[in-house]
Amino acid sequence: MCGVVGIAGKSPVNQMLFDALTMLQHRGQDAAGIVTCHNGRLFLRKDNGMVRDVFHTRHMRALQGNYGIGHVRYPTAGSSSSAEAQPFYVNSPYGITLAHNGNLTNAEEIHEDLFKTDLRHMNTDSDSEVLLNVFAHELQKRGKLNPTSEDIFHVISRVHERCKGAYGVVAMITGQGLVGFRDPNGIRPLIYGSRETEQGMEYIIASESVAITALGFKVERDIAPGEAIFINDAGELFTQQCAAKPEYRPCIFEYVYFARPDATIDGISVYKARLKMGEKLAHKITQEWGEQHDIDVVIPIPDTSRTSALELANTLGVKFREGFMKNRYIGRTFIMPGQQLRKKSVRQKLNPVELEFKGKNVLLVDDSIVRGTTCNEIIQMARDAGAKKVFFASAAPMVKYPNVYGIDMPAKDELIASNRNVEEIREIIGADRLIFQDLEDLKQAVRTHKVPHLTEFDCSVFDGVYVAGGIDEAYLNDLEQKRNDLAKKGKDGYIDVNIDAASVDLTGVKES
Amino acid sequence: MCGVVGIAGKSPVNQMLFDALTMLQHRGQDAAGIVTCHNGRLFLRKDNGMVRDVFHTRHMRALQGNYGIGHVRYPTAGSSSSAEAQPFYVNSPYGITLAHNGNLTNAEEIHEDLFKTDLRHMNTDSDSEVLLNVFAHELQKRGKLNPTSEDIFHVISRVHERCKGAYGVVAMITGQGLVGFRDPNGIRPLIYGSRETEQGMEYIIASESVAITALGFKVERDIAPGEAIFINDAGELFTQQCAAKPEYRPCIFEYVYFARPDATIDGISVYKARLKMGEKLAHKITQEWGEQHDIDVVIPIPDTSRTSALELANTLGVKFREGFMKNRYIGRTFIMPGQQLRKKSVRQKLNPVELEFKGKNVLLVDDSIVRGTTCNEIIQMARDAGAKKVFFASAAPMVKYPNVYGIDMPAKDELIASNRNVEEIREIIGADRLIFQDLEDLKQAVRTHKVPHLTEFDCSVFDGVYVAGGIDEAYLNDLEQKRNDLAKKGKDGYIDVNIDAASVDLTGVKES
Amino acid sequence: MCGVVGIAGKSPVNQMLFDALTMLQHRGQDAAGIVTCHNGRLFLRKDNGMVRDVFHTRHMRALQGNYGIGHVRYPTAGSSSSAEAQPFYVNSPYGITLAHNGNLTNAEEIHEDLFKTDLRHMNTDSDSEVLLNVFAHELQKRGKLNPTSEDIFHVISRVHERCKGAYGVVAMITGQGLVGFRDPNGIRPLIYGSRETEQGMEYIIASESVAITALGFKVERDIAPGEAIFINDAGELFTQQCAAKPEYRPCIFEYVYFARPDATIDGISVYKARLKMGEKLAHKITQEWGEQHDIDVVIPIPDTSRTSALELANTLGVKFREGFMKNRYIGRTFIMPGQQLRKKSVRQKLNPVELEFKGKNVLLVDDSIVRGTTCNEIIQMARDAGAKKVFFASAAPMVKYPNVYGIDMPAKDELIASNRNVEEIREIIGADRLIFQDLEDLKQAVRTHKVPHLTEFDCSVFDGVYVAGGIDEAYLNDLEQKRNDLAKKGKDGYIDVNIDAASVDLTGVKES
Amino acid sequence: MCGVVGIAGKSPVNQMLFDALTMLQHRGQDAAGIVTCHNGRLFLRKDNGMVRDVFHTRHMRALQGNYGIGHVRYPTAGSSSSAEAQPFYVNSPYGITLAHNGNLTNAEEIHEDLFKTDLRHMNTDSDSEVLLNVFAHELQKRGKLNPTSEDIFHVISRVHERCKGAYGVVAMITGQGLVGFRDPNGIRPLIYGSRETEQGMEYIIASESVAITALGFKVERDIAPGEAIFINDAGELFTQQCAAKPEYRPCIFEYVYFARPDATIDGISVYKARLKMGEKLAHKITQEWGEQHDIDVVIPIPDTSRTSALELANTLGVKFREGFMKNRYIGRTFIMPGQQLRKKSVRQKLNPVELEFKGKNVLLVDDSIVRGTTCNEIIQMARDAGAKKVFFASAAPMVKYPNVYGIDMPAKDELIASNRNVEEIREIIGADRLIFQDLEDLKQAVRTHKVPHLTEFDCSVFDGVYVAGGIDEAYLNDLEQKRNDLAKKGKDGYIDVNIDAASVDLTGVKES
Repeated sequence: MCGVVGIAGKSPVNQMLFDALTMLQHRGQDAAGIVTCHNGRLFLRKDNGMVRDVFHTRHMRALQGNYGIGHVRYPTAGSSSSAEAQPFYVNSPYGITLAHNGNLTNAEEIHEDLFKTDLRHMNTDSDSEVLLNVFAHELQKRGKLNPTSEDIFHVISRVHERCKGAYGVVAMITGQGLVGFRDPNGIRPLIYGSRETEQGMEYIIASESVAITALGFKVERDIAPGEAIFINDAGELFTQQCAAKPEYRPCIFEYVYFARPDATIDGISVYKARLKMGEKLAHKITQEWGEQHDIDVVIPIPDTSRTSALELANTLGVKFREGFMKNRYIGRTFIMPGQQLRKKSVRQKLNPVELEFKGKNVLLVDDSIVRGTTCNEIIQMARDAGAKKVFFASAAPMVKYPNVYGIDMPAKDELIASNRNVEEIREIIGADRLIFQDLEDLKQAVRTHKVPHLTEFDCSVFDGVYVAGGIDEAYLNDLEQKRNDLAKKGKDGYIDVNIDAASVDLTGVKES
Repeated sequence: MCGVVGIAGKSPVNQMLFDALTMLQHRGQDAAGIVTCHNGRLFLRKDNGMVRDVFHTRHMRALQGNYGIGHVRYPTAGSSSSAEAQPFYVNSPYGITLAHNGNLTNAEEIHEDLFKTDLRHMNTDSDSEVLLNVFAHELQKRGKLNPTSEDIFHVISRVHERCKGAYGVVAMITGQGLVGFRDPNGIRPLIYGSRETEQGMEYIIASESVAITALGFKVERDIAPGEAIFINDAGELFTQQCAAKPEYRPCIFEYVYFARPDATIDGISVYKARLKMGEKLAHKITQEWGEQHDIDVVIPIPDTSRTSALELANTLGVKFREGFMKNRYIGRTFIMPGQQLRKKSVRQKLNPVELEFKGKNVLLVDDSIVRGTTCNEIIQMARDAGAKKVFFASAAPMVKYPNVYGIDMPAKDELIASNRNVEEIREIIGADRLIFQDLEDLKQAVRTHKVPHLTEFDCSVFDGVYVAGGIDEAYLNDLEQKRNDLAKKGKDGYIDVNIDAASVDLTGVKES
Repeated sequence: MCGVVGIAGKSPVNQMLFDALTMLQHRGQDAAGIVTCHNGRLFLRKDNGMVRDVFHTRHMRALQGNYGIGHVRYPTAGSSSSAEAQPFYVNSPYGITLAHNGNLTNAEEIHEDLFKTDLRHMNTDSDSEVLLNVFAHELQKRGKLNPTSEDIFHVISRVHERCKGAYGVVAMITGQGLVGFRDPNGIRPLIYGSRETEQGMEYIIASESVAITALGFKVERDIAPGEAIFINDAGELFTQQCAAKPEYRPCIFEYVYFARPDATIDGISVYKARLKMGEKLAHKITQEWGEQHDIDVVIPIPDTSRTSALELANTLGVKFREGFMKNRYIGRTFIMPGQQLRKKSVRQKLNPVELEFKGKNVLLVDDSIVRGTTCNEIIQMARDAGAKKVFFASAAPMVKYPNVYGIDMPAKDELIASNRNVEEIREIIGADRLIFQDLEDLKQAVRTHKVPHLTEFDCSVFDGVYVAGGIDEAYLNDLEQKRNDLAKKGKDGYIDVNIDAASVDLTGVKES
Repeated sequence: MCGVVGIAGKSPVNQMLFDALTMLQHRGQDAAGIVTCHNGRLFLRKDNGMVRDVFHTRHMRALQGNYGIGHVRYPTAGSSSSAEAQPFYVNSPYGITLAHNGNLTNAEEIHEDLFKTDLRHMNTDSDSEVLLNVFAHELQKRGKLNPTSEDIFHVISRVHERCKGAYGVVAMITGQGLVGFRDPNGIRPLIYGSRETEQGMEYIIASESVAITALGFKVERDIAPGEAIFINDAGELFTQQCAAKPEYRPCIFEYVYFARPDATIDGISVYKARLKMGEKLAHKITQEWGEQHDIDVVIPIPDTSRTSALELANTLGVKFREGFMKNRYIGRTFIMPGQQLRKKSVRQKLNPVELEFKGKNVLLVDDSIVRGTTCNEIIQMARDAGAKKVFFASAAPMVKYPNVYGIDMPAKDELIASNRNVEEIREIIGADRLIFQDLEDLKQAVRTHKVPHLTEFDCSVFDGVYVAGGIDEAYLNDLEQKRNDLAKKGKDGYIDVNIDAASVDLTGVKES
């Protein structure tokens, strides 16, 4: 998963892009990048690391201009590479920069095709570089000195035709304008907002609403599946549906885990959806375990599950307590010569408050169970802290299938639920009882009468249905194979596009 | 406030000290340092920044040895300087390194004295450097090639006689051993633990219990006010009361705000104390505002007040909801030439979930109110999110006096409560209702029958009683004056003691 | 002036390129870059700074592959920008990287043209980026999946037709091979060599012969004016004349000042040429000043003029002495707040040995006089050291015209000789006597019977004849205007292409 | 060998110290450091690396004050450690900082003694730390709040009594003044100068005269062997002989190789001494090889031998030519995984100009022959370049003994001349003829009638006479053993004293 933002402003956008990326940091902490445009020139800074570490004063100073885009990266495993920071850049035509959230499932075919038809070199396995080159190629074919919004929208139609998968994209065409578009199923979110200033209207496109509101912009609306938005150099906004058969199938995992709770995606409050997940799960518990469910206290595994766990406790009529404290500061294990790697227990991240466990039957609530490896440790911690019985609840259904739309999920054989039933999983993680949300309940938790047209979701990790098509057994096997190959093959080709690390006034402090 | 740790181990302690500092990071994020000892040689690394940023692999590699101490620093304003990372070092006698949590209130007099009697140069205004030199001077006067535990304890008695204020200290005497001691009122916490290994018993001294348990050590007990602990080079442990008239007066603010909720300080669970703060406050609300208090929902200002707010809600029988989401990623405002500094609203740190505010009477709960500047903004956010009425509760009493024992509190005239009553404060912050905990209730919340001897606390910020003595009107005025002078005067002299930044094997990557 | 190198090897070329750039460092100390190619992927590192500062172990490790090119940059003022490190990269077609020594005089027209016909965006004012895009555009027009040597040579013919000026170029076409070519007048040098290895023949192309021999390669021959060389991916070498009317007009300033003395350019030993400059100048001195020239000792201004000064002394029959010692370590003036900038005297770079001046008539010899600003100081130093009379000789003629072929010469009005005669200059610099080499003598010094076809040179800075054509009064005025504009306008757009600064294994030491 | 400087100024000395260290950079390129004093506070910056790399703007800004000292370090092997940058600091008494050029031969005994009598901890094996602690200990024994010049000089007398070996020292006593002193044999140089300013007289103490004159100071005179100089805080200068039996025995190797040619040491011009070395050697050649010596051309191995080679050629009446070009840019060999270390030939540093060798009998001149390892390669290069015969001359006698006074010479068994005669050496290095200067000739070359009292030198590397005494066979064997041990033992304890690396205004760019 990644976060993207683009701003067409009336004054310098560097600080705004920085702030927006900070608000989207939870979507990707692996790399960050910003490119801006000023007088037909591009200024770019990107690097591995968190936003606060990637951008220093000298970089911000260099990022001139009123138009720009930004990106935070979560390493996407699978068919795409994990070695690249975004935005990407091609110089032909116009000088185009692009940032992408999601994953193309047919990137490899396109890659080959693009070379054969257009001799376009791509220096990585990144599907984002492919996406950019498709866009660039189609735009070049129009051959206009100054492409109109019709040209842009036509090009995006072509992108929809050629690219399969999930994508929320912002792109900047030097001297022409800012572009945003979303895949025909709307798997990845994209939303835009506006702000009146004395100099005129400013627009922002982002992955989540929080990046818009935190900057003092007003949310306009979500960009629809398949829809595109174009703000030209004069600041005029155009939108158009560019997909042949768009359908609303947003990724349900955004609501379960990925998005910030205070975000609203496609009209649905993530927070409210999580509350309802807790409520639904409470009903299932009463149903399955009976009114005498024997639970003394409900304890969330912080932070994501807190919202659903609270409502779960409310619905059950059981006390809710923060029995685990999360250490906010990230540890690290240094490998010293002659020393052995000691496995860090999960204790460095979570610490139980014994008071809340001693002699009680506790229900631990997590948002989902993926590998299941830490569940075991957490349950043991609860027992060590004196819990009589330890029950475990997952606010999401069993994760049985890999993700191909940009979420960094492990391969099928690493998913604890891929070939096991509840009882088998319970035994492995060592819980006294285990319960999962039903998929139908999850969908109902997310659905809301305020957005009646949105009834279906991409639930592929739960049900194996890949809404954008083109995924079969062979593809998934191939994917698993490639991961293993990737691990062996090592690093991608690498061309990283950066502003000068040694601008004149900084020479003196360069190597600090 | 700061965090200290010392380990007398049987194998290399670098990683353990790093892990312990990570667990204490909440006590100080301004600077960090570790010094270790190996074969009579000291290895030191310290710098401004968080633990994860200060220590890199090459530093860790250099930090050899089985004994060592560490420090995380919170900038302490007032009579001491904010310019120095710890541990500090003096070479005479023995080579002593020291890390200190707290504040001496008579550092200035001692400083002058030490120069006159012993020609000892101190290069900063830091009271920790003074403390170290007192310790060093007294130890040198004993003149022993190999000081015994009696020598050490005698020296600490002298430190208690000469130094006034609050201090939890760990020190390392090269080739002799590890020392820990606590001021005669036990204002600052200090606790120790042990671990059996195949090579023998290992000991750890730390500011909070979580640093001990997270490393797999067993908590032995808190070090008593005035008590000292010495683990000699052979690994033998000695403890002794070194103060003439020790009294238990731990800082109550540790329970209110500073310590981790999962810590146990002087036998009292911080978490439990906070639950009881919520309970006590609920009773006061019922009493003052009546059973028809009109509160629809209780919402904590994350993170500290969450525990007390939850119990407050439970006691009131009102819904508890996480109406504010905290952005975990720190923003930053870059000053660009020609751009004006735009004030960042508190919105970049907190975001309301509108759902929980719309049309409701909300009770916001914070751990305490110091300056009161952000209350105003938060209350406004609640109103903007649709709240009908906004009530505000402080889990601590009114903060009326400055802190002189190491907590970075503002000067008296910046404290919103210093010369105002509740109604005046309510008006300033714009709440519909405002309530503070009573001091007696706070004390009762912290007291526990398990620790019957601990009935009184340093509550100076609430009641103006400075338990370690020597603080009068003149001192406080002087303190306020010095702060203003400090701001003008600029940086301290600076000698920072570091391991080599360019060890041979890193030459190649030095300036990355 | 810049230095370029390209290697088509049979084993990794990173260290070889690094070594070659070190040997070419005298041609440019402003920036350095290397790009290599491995399995169709490019790896690039470039930054401002000297070779030893730009490349660290982690960069070298990333620079994989058996083919690669490198560049050291001397800031070229005038029509091109000084803000960019090379090699440059375009992804379409094939992924082409290019490094360039020289200067295009019609870059601006081409720039505009390239955008109109091909929508190619260039992000800087650099003529090298223009050159690359011309090459790329012409190659794309061929539209071959695998271009043959004929295709490549045709493309270079087109480059010769479109580009005016001086250029020694190496380029790498991903997956296709290594290219080198030289402008139709051969103004900038380019030479190639080869080496037999067990894996087959390896080729190197470089700006100077020393880079070839120092790496253990054998010099094959200079690339002729207009000629191109292509080593394809299989390691086969092709050469062809690609210019319509090539003529040998190498830059004579390479022999005077720029090239290393141990280099051989176009068959002529730079060292020998300098010896003969000294001899010629000696004859002119005897002629003009008479046999009783009154010179006691000949003293070079180190380092360049040492060779000619020695032979000048020999020919005159006068003692040669190293009266000035050069400080090899570069100083720097820090601007402190409140401190005034003190002008560093030339004394920090040169120090006279008084012994050699006291009571003597000294003849100071420099390679050339450009601005004349330091002459004055040096002559004063000689007088302060006790010289009776100070004579001054320039091994080159009067520099009267700006350079448009890549040498960073000041604008016309800053050249001391542009509108002055010898006597006027003598008075300004304060010498007792002053003599310049005659241009015809200089040419004769450089000419050698071993290279009979090479009789004419680009001597534009001396005679104002710009051999590549297209330079008129208007152009030169425009050039001067642009420099002034550049100074005001500030930095170029900037896209710097770098390998990842934070590869996985270095994360820990990143900010050292 | 190292370089030291101290300045007692009337305005900030940071830039002056920086400039002085740049002028002394040839004396040590391994590490650099500056400490300044302002209002009783010390500011220090030191690190491994060259002057230009160690000091950045933020460091210079921090180095406040009108008094300060600086150091450049050459790694001194043997009994002292190579792991430490200077100046060193102790806080008791007064806060003393010290920088040292030379080597103590009884450091180990003193080290032990200082701990036993004064419990002083030293954290390295550095003899400079020992020297500082002796000084500090003796000064503390005086016990004065404000020591007079008599106190200081008495303390230095005690240092002379306790310390054996070579030392040129500058030290700063916080709040008291600047000190300089030189060992009783004057083995290491030390010189001082002064400058009138409007604010009063400023003084500078330095290792070489060039640091004084380049800063615009006037050389006063060399500090005599055993003499001390003290400039108190009020700016008054005092000097006094502090040694019981001072004798003039400066290190003759300073004249042969170490010092800059434009320096004057103890009244003797290094340049002139080198000229005379050439002259003497010429006479010996004529004597030994006869007038028909068969030499066609004299070629120096740059840079040091250039002066003597020129005069040698003049005296012989043979042509002098710069047949070897020195590459000024330092290469580096990166170790890549899987690649083997290829030995860099000396060719990367020196390149022959074939013209000067082809068919000639060449006499190569070097300043001295130590290990002899590169001679071989150079001679082979001369042959490869076409030389008929290759003769070799050393301007210094055979280096037969290790150095214990601070010059980094190899151990005895690595000295090519330690157990061999001229013929044996000739054969090993592969010359057709080989000649060494006679020691008596060398002394005569250095002696001058202007300094009649200076007739003897420390010539220990040539004659094995260690003028400061206390060196016997056992000591030298021990020394050799320790080197081997050092190599195995690894790094010293390390406490590096630095100014804050993260001052407030640089936080943002810290890790660039």
